[in-house]
Amino acid sequence: MDDDVETVTLADAFDSFEEHWSPRLAAELNGQAVKLAKLDGEFVWHHHDDADELFLVVSGSLRIELRGREDRELGPGELAVVPAGVEHRPVADAETEVLLFEPVETRNTGDVESERTSELERL
Amino acid sequence: MDDDVETVTLADAFDSFEEHWSPRLAAELNGQAVKLAKLDGEFVWHHHDDADELFLVVSGSLRIELRGREDRELGPGELAVVPAGVEHRPVADAETEVLLFEPVETRNTGDVESERTSELERL
Repeated sequence: MDDDVETVTLADAFDSFEEHWSPRLAAELNGQAVKLAKLDGEFVWHHHDDADELFLVVSGSLRIELRGREDRELGPGELAVVPAGVEHRPVADAETEVLLFEPVETRNTGDVESERTSELERL
Repeated sequence: MDDDVETVTLADAFDSFEEHWSPRLAAELNGQAVKLAKLDGEFVWHHHDDADELFLVVSGSLRIELRGREDRELGPGELAVVPAGVEHRPVADAETEVLLFEPVETRNTGDVESERTSELERL
């Protein structure tokens, strides 16, 4: 068993990459992942068949557009959980840093293959 | 299926309770829970047989003491993952707010029954 106690300083982790819409794996636990992403602009509409997805805004501002219902607007220190199956589109009007909790294997664009589809890289 | 999109403002959530060492359930996803806790002083030594546990410091400062290895010191925006089976003791020298990510059913004192053992309350 790997019983190392991993620590992550979010500010340093976000400073270590520039790319938008390309989540980095920060930590793993119980089959779930903590992923860090920088967002800017509009993402693609998508959903995840089997995975709920948590967004926690660390800096900036995130609008989660939801098909057929009201958008959710999140600032720093605000989180939202998008349940499996719910179609959504993250939009950031300026650069925004978010922490994601979701299964390790969840693909960023869910059911959609697009130029935004990104392999998960370890920090 | 409950497909409501839950949102939580951490500052408001922490303002809604005072008690120390008594985690509140802020959100659930994929069988895991986001719990919020206020810590002050020394907790009990314990471990979780089957659950990795994530601590993310929101405000204050947390020392995670680990049996037989170096302490981890976490400030705001720093996180640690304590793997299942690793005996640990959280210590906060002043009031500290933390976000925990772990299975919904994980008990705060793990394998130990103590006066600090607390039922999980929903926010």
